[in-house]
Amino acid sequence: MTTVSLPDDIFWMRRALALAERVLYSTAPNPRVGCVIVRDGQVLGEGATQPPGGPHAEICALRDAQARQAAVAGATMYVTLEPCSHFGRTPPCVDAVLAARPARVVVAIGDPNPLVNGQGLARLREAGIAVTTGVCAEEALAINAGFISRMSRGLPWVWMKMAASLDGRSALHNGMSQWITGAEARADGHHWRARSCVVLTGMGTVLKDDPQLNVRGVDTPRQPRKAVVDGRLSIPEDARLFDGGEVIIFTARDDAAKAARLADQNARVVVLPGPVPDRVDLQAMMRWFAQEQFNEVHVEAGAGLSGALVSAGCVDELLLYVAPVLLGDAAGMVRLPMLEHLDAAQRYEFIDTALLGADVRLRARVAQTWRELMQRVALSAPN
Amino acid sequence: MTTVSLPDDIFWMRRALALAERVLYSTAPNPRVGCVIVRDGQVLGEGATQPPGGPHAEICALRDAQARQAAVAGATMYVTLEPCSHFGRTPPCVDAVLAARPARVVVAIGDPNPLVNGQGLARLREAGIAVTTGVCAEEALAINAGFISRMSRGLPWVWMKMAASLDGRSALHNGMSQWITGAEARADGHHWRARSCVVLTGMGTVLKDDPQLNVRGVDTPRQPRKAVVDGRLSIPEDARLFDGGEVIIFTARDDAAKAARLADQNARVVVLPGPVPDRVDLQAMMRWFAQEQFNEVHVEAGAGLSGALVSAGCVDELLLYVAPVLLGDAAGMVRLPMLEHLDAAQRYEFIDTALLGADVRLRARVAQTWRELMQRVALSAPN
Repeated sequence: MTTVSLPDDIFWMRRALALAERVLYSTAPNPRVGCVIVRDGQVLGEGATQPPGGPHAEICALRDAQARQAAVAGATMYVTLEPCSHFGRTPPCVDAVLAARPARVVVAIGDPNPLVNGQGLARLREAGIAVTTGVCAEEALAINAGFISRMSRGLPWVWMKMAASLDGRSALHNGMSQWITGAEARADGHHWRARSCVVLTGMGTVLKDDPQLNVRGVDTPRQPRKAVVDGRLSIPEDARLFDGGEVIIFTARDDAAKAARLADQNARVVVLPGPVPDRVDLQAMMRWFAQEQFNEVHVEAGAGLSGALVSAGCVDELLLYVAPVLLGDAAGMVRLPMLEHLDAAQRYEFIDTALLGADVRLRARVAQTWRELMQRVALSAPN
Repeated sequence: MTTVSLPDDIFWMRRALALAERVLYSTAPNPRVGCVIVRDGQVLGEGATQPPGGPHAEICALRDAQARQAAVAGATMYVTLEPCSHFGRTPPCVDAVLAARPARVVVAIGDPNPLVNGQGLARLREAGIAVTTGVCAEEALAINAGFISRMSRGLPWVWMKMAASLDGRSALHNGMSQWITGAEARADGHHWRARSCVVLTGMGTVLKDDPQLNVRGVDTPRQPRKAVVDGRLSIPEDARLFDGGEVIIFTARDDAAKAARLADQNARVVVLPGPVPDRVDLQAMMRWFAQEQFNEVHVEAGAGLSGALVSAGCVDELLLYVAPVLLGDAAGMVRLPMLEHLDAAQRYEFIDTALLGADVRLRARVAQTWRELMQRVALSAPN
């Protein structure tokens, strides 16, 4: 196993990652994968995972090479995720790769799916194919953090979208909040909704803003599901988010009559009571999402649910849009218990900063969780 | 006048700007200026403004060329600020430039100093020297925003340094605030103190933190002055900020006895009462700074004075260090009156973002003030 990434490998893997980025909205619950087949600095074929039931990236790239009448034998294949070695909705990609006889396969990260988990790479090595792993691993994990998280720890990857002023205020004292950030920041927020499997909010937001919670202004073949944390099962049956698409209502109250009425709105009621009366068990909710094959959860809620999710350790990443304005005495972003010492606060690590129109986007994630996932995708490939 | 900046011009002007950056801490109250003399892509000489009383950048660069035995006649001079045309502590730079007979002089911005204000450039043109202006004007203004602000509007350039959590909290409810941001962010803060003419704080901070307010960990030949807004003239005479360097105490109370005792600590008391009893007139304070040749004011204060300065329109730029942590119920950054509508909030424009260790630095400024200064430095050079 080569541990040094050659510049060429990085170049071609980035192209494969760019292909994976193009299918960001359409592969769930499958991972987004890109594949490029190269010989002597020339692309022979390339492709990315098609929607569920369709071919995976490796197959698309091999078919592309075939269409171009390019022989893959002896070439190098770049894949952003370890090729699958099991029958799912499609046959194992590893079989197709073996049949094409490339000289070398370069993989960004291993697949912790227990049905794959290094077996794909082992079979390639057994057949005498050189295998390099770990090229652009951080970028590859970032594209599929949800899938990897679900496979390796039984939880989705959860990001929380917030918009606030420079001094951390998300609404005026009178509740006015709609336009703190500008059009570019709001459009970027819809991109994040679009890539998620579900958009989650709380009852406070439903009652205050009556949001649609759908993706608007993004060219996407699918809408994410919608979910509401509604401890008392008190959601109005005419809320705007009921638009025909499936809605999941998490509640602590077992109310069959209301659940039946909500079913008419295509809403599925999931009863997950926590230890506090009328409060949903948020950690159980996240496990439920993973069991139901939700990879990524996009949270867009008020200070109450946002704070509760942070306190329950359910938030992996923050997506914070900061408007260049000072609001002073106004509503805060997250309601958290009073801290006596800074050490007790939830710490994140910044991932990136971006200027979006007049606003800045800050992304930060829980460093420890990220490191654990990085270990899982590195170790699943045997040395 | 050429209005198109050639790539070569930008390249050399950036070098001149880099020279000006090197004297960021040492030229006040004079502007930081860099100068590069170039012929056929070769540097003949270069230099930057020396401490007050010493030679300006143009003279340094001409002397450097002389030391290298390079003839400047027919060459191009790049200067980050219009050469002075008046006798100050040193003779006019324009005379030296004329004597050296360059073929062309490229200037980033004009000098709105009424003693210069285009006259330097006019004399160069009269002598048949080609003059280009406006190359890298934004960067050049950024290096000398304080000097330009003082010359053109009789006010210093004021930035306010703040450190806060992602949710805009600068201290826990129990007052704990010392270590929200990390070592790199604090070191960067000292760089900003070092370039300022004065570090300004309020009595709340003096009583709570007893800060030294000096520059530490930065290689600087001078310390900025220190200033405290102390409406009731109640500062303890043993405060740590009294370290022998000059301290300015702005107050609303005329208390000769206390002022005399403070004079023993090298503190100068300036009485500037505002319309509210025991409150200093903050706008008058800023005008006072400019009259006393303070170019840049570094504010590092608590939520009370910070909010009052923002409300009084005294803050031109925000320097906000954001730690990747959520604190929830804790102290806010700025105390501002309650707003009924977002339109009433003070708006800024982001200048840049930087990752400093684990923290992010956000810089934002008042767009309107910046545009006005840009107009002043552009228009001071006649067409």
